[in-house]
Amino acid sequence: MKVEIITIGDEILIGQTVDTNSAWMASKLNEIGVRVNRINSISDEAGSIITTLEEAFRRVDLVLMTGGLGPTNDDITKKTLSRHFGMELKMNEEVLADITAFFTSRGKGMLQMNSDQALLPEGAVVLRNYKGTASGMWFERDGKSVVSMPGVPYEMEHLMETGVIPRIIEKYKTTPVFHHTLMTFGEGESFIAERIKEWEASLSGTGVKLAYLPSPGIVKLRLSAFGPDKSLLELSVMRKVAELEVLIPELIYGHNDETMEKVVSNLLKTKGLRIATAESCTGGYIAHLLTSIAGSSAYYEGSFCTYSYRSKSEILGVDEDLILHQGAVSGEVVQAMVKGVFTHFHTDYAIAVSGIAGPDGGTLEKPVGTVWMCVGTKENQVTQCFHFGKDRMRNIRMTALHALNLVRLSILAS
Amino acid sequence: MKVEIITIGDEILIGQTVDTNSAWMASKLNEIGVRVNRINSISDEAGSIITTLEEAFRRVDLVLMTGGLGPTNDDITKKTLSRHFGMELKMNEEVLADITAFFTSRGKGMLQMNSDQALLPEGAVVLRNYKGTASGMWFERDGKSVVSMPGVPYEMEHLMETGVIPRIIEKYKTTPVFHHTLMTFGEGESFIAERIKEWEASLSGTGVKLAYLPSPGIVKLRLSAFGPDKSLLELSVMRKVAELEVLIPELIYGHNDETMEKVVSNLLKTKGLRIATAESCTGGYIAHLLTSIAGSSAYYEGSFCTYSYRSKSEILGVDEDLILHQGAVSGEVVQAMVKGVFTHFHTDYAIAVSGIAGPDGGTLEKPVGTVWMCVGTKENQVTQCFHFGKDRMRNIRMTALHALNLVRLSILAS
Repeated sequence: MKVEIITIGDEILIGQTVDTNSAWMASKLNEIGVRVNRINSISDEAGSIITTLEEAFRRVDLVLMTGGLGPTNDDITKKTLSRHFGMELKMNEEVLADITAFFTSRGKGMLQMNSDQALLPEGAVVLRNYKGTASGMWFERDGKSVVSMPGVPYEMEHLMETGVIPRIIEKYKTTPVFHHTLMTFGEGESFIAERIKEWEASLSGTGVKLAYLPSPGIVKLRLSAFGPDKSLLELSVMRKVAELEVLIPELIYGHNDETMEKVVSNLLKTKGLRIATAESCTGGYIAHLLTSIAGSSAYYEGSFCTYSYRSKSEILGVDEDLILHQGAVSGEVVQAMVKGVFTHFHTDYAIAVSGIAGPDGGTLEKPVGTVWMCVGTKENQVTQCFHFGKDRMRNIRMTALHALNLVRLSILAS
Repeated sequence: MKVEIITIGDEILIGQTVDTNSAWMASKLNEIGVRVNRINSISDEAGSIITTLEEAFRRVDLVLMTGGLGPTNDDITKKTLSRHFGMELKMNEEVLADITAFFTSRGKGMLQMNSDQALLPEGAVVLRNYKGTASGMWFERDGKSVVSMPGVPYEMEHLMETGVIPRIIEKYKTTPVFHHTLMTFGEGESFIAERIKEWEASLSGTGVKLAYLPSPGIVKLRLSAFGPDKSLLELSVMRKVAELEVLIPELIYGHNDETMEKVVSNLLKTKGLRIATAESCTGGYIAHLLTSIAGSSAYYEGSFCTYSYRSKSEILGVDEDLILHQGAVSGEVVQAMVKGVFTHFHTDYAIAVSGIAGPDGGTLEKPVGTVWMCVGTKENQVTQCFHFGKDRMRNIRMTALHALNLVRLSILAS
């Protein structure tokens, strides 16, 4: 089963927007054993939309399209496809009620162009959009289908998950596939490859394939098997997963795209532990990760972001002399910051970080990317120094991930 | 002048890699007035590469291709194109010397597959790569050209800048283009469209085109013009920009892809003002945005994230009775939180937010998405209540953007 993706929008063709939708869709399709044959990014022009669609129909039976469904004049996908398939636009009362409720709940008035979004092609299957006002539409002709979705990522994702993926599974015979992903943290892919090379060689003949998916700090190891017998696939993949868990236990922090913050939050919640942070170079990013998880008040108490020397001493009670003699980026200071956290917040765990995120502020002794962190309980803490790179956002993220990982290891060891 | 881009690689089609190369190339091409007609992402298969190339040649004269130039067996682009254009691979001694120097300078040994990268098609123009070992190749046939570049972003960027862009300018007559984007905040695209519809109608005949690019909270309005006279284009676009700035001044917060945090940071820096925050529902996200900008210590002092009732009263000094009687999500509490910020941090501006990010914690009176914020100086504050939606991450982001926008408006009004 192969599909093609068509993303519509001049903003992609002039390089103003990176097309992240295609990768998201491709990876979701991959999970259900559907392969993407080609991704086509084209302009908001009727001729271009129809030509590209008909070309794609010559290669595959199903085309997924995003973009051009907004309420304004430059959004032409709905009109173009409806005309092409000879369908009339008709007011869909249920969708109109959804759109009206959408505006009412936000206390906003509705314009003609908003209610016009409920004008939908008679004959197409409507995929209801509960996160926005543009419905998805599934058109069919002579055994070929095209699905039109809005280009706003979270609306597209919502429609894929609730409407498109279930319908693909129901309608097409997809080759069963089983994936399991091990989430590793702290080592590069080549280092991992070296450690597991004998195990990797043992995959040959088992039908299980391995892919390394690296991103800063994290390498996902995805094990996949395709074949007619779903239960057999799961068995062969999970046997190999179990072997890997024995080989590199300290590198594996989670499974199947779990984020580090999700894993740490679950651990804290399960053990009934609470946490607070004191952040200098991460400027609230660790707090943000911890509170991005629903229900975070169960384990998160609060944070101090102390960027200036003055706030470190006045608020966290770090000795000014210590800052002057050791520098704000030092083991002594992050230890004093952790003490400050325990003085003010009554938590089980504390994190303190201080570093030079860059691009400026580095010295010969402490170059950009130098980060000290102290993590632990009142009684038992780990203090570590790291050297990341020159990129500010990468340094902030790497610091946060390492700090959370230290919390994870500390809870598991206790 | 139109070109097409072909990016080659299975990692794109399974969603493992987001194709950022295309956006980068498109934006560089756009600067020299070259428009991208279509972006095609395809798999590492000879048949697929040739078919897609020949299709593109039917639409445009120049095709830029990335990927498949590495040293390993799965990299087939060089062989495929050379065979297609009937060119023999021949050892290029200068390139071989480059590659040898590349390995020597890194203290690494060289394999046969590395020196084979200096085997290049006789008849193609070689674009020397000083950042890696895969050369770029410019093939020509009957007035059509295809340029093959490596897929590693910084190598591709290097080849584009040193080899491809200068050659395009020299070889083709490019049509100049001028874009200007107005960044708006706080209204949906349909409302903006309604407010500016007469202005939008006045674009007809001016050669200036308008595009709405919406994302949560922010709508970008991109004005573009193409034509032979570059100075005329700029004049006609900027005249329309000026009209729009008069029509919707309070909605426009910036220009040309500036983020809200960048604009607010610049304002604070320019005016020599410092800021601190007290965050409940955003859990450090406002602090994170403010510190994501390089040089943020010039205007950012620090933050309190006070998630629990206890931390709100113990740390920020919010009266416990107030929290009990008004609720933590109330105008009175965010005002008291701002007072707490000014007590501890010695800043010019303070932000305090408290809300129900969801998905749980809502009540009939205060449903999920209810957010109170207080923003301003010691003397002069604005307190407002918002109702966002049900999505946790969207609520956090919308809260942060609104709070930063209130800072912006307050500074501008002072």
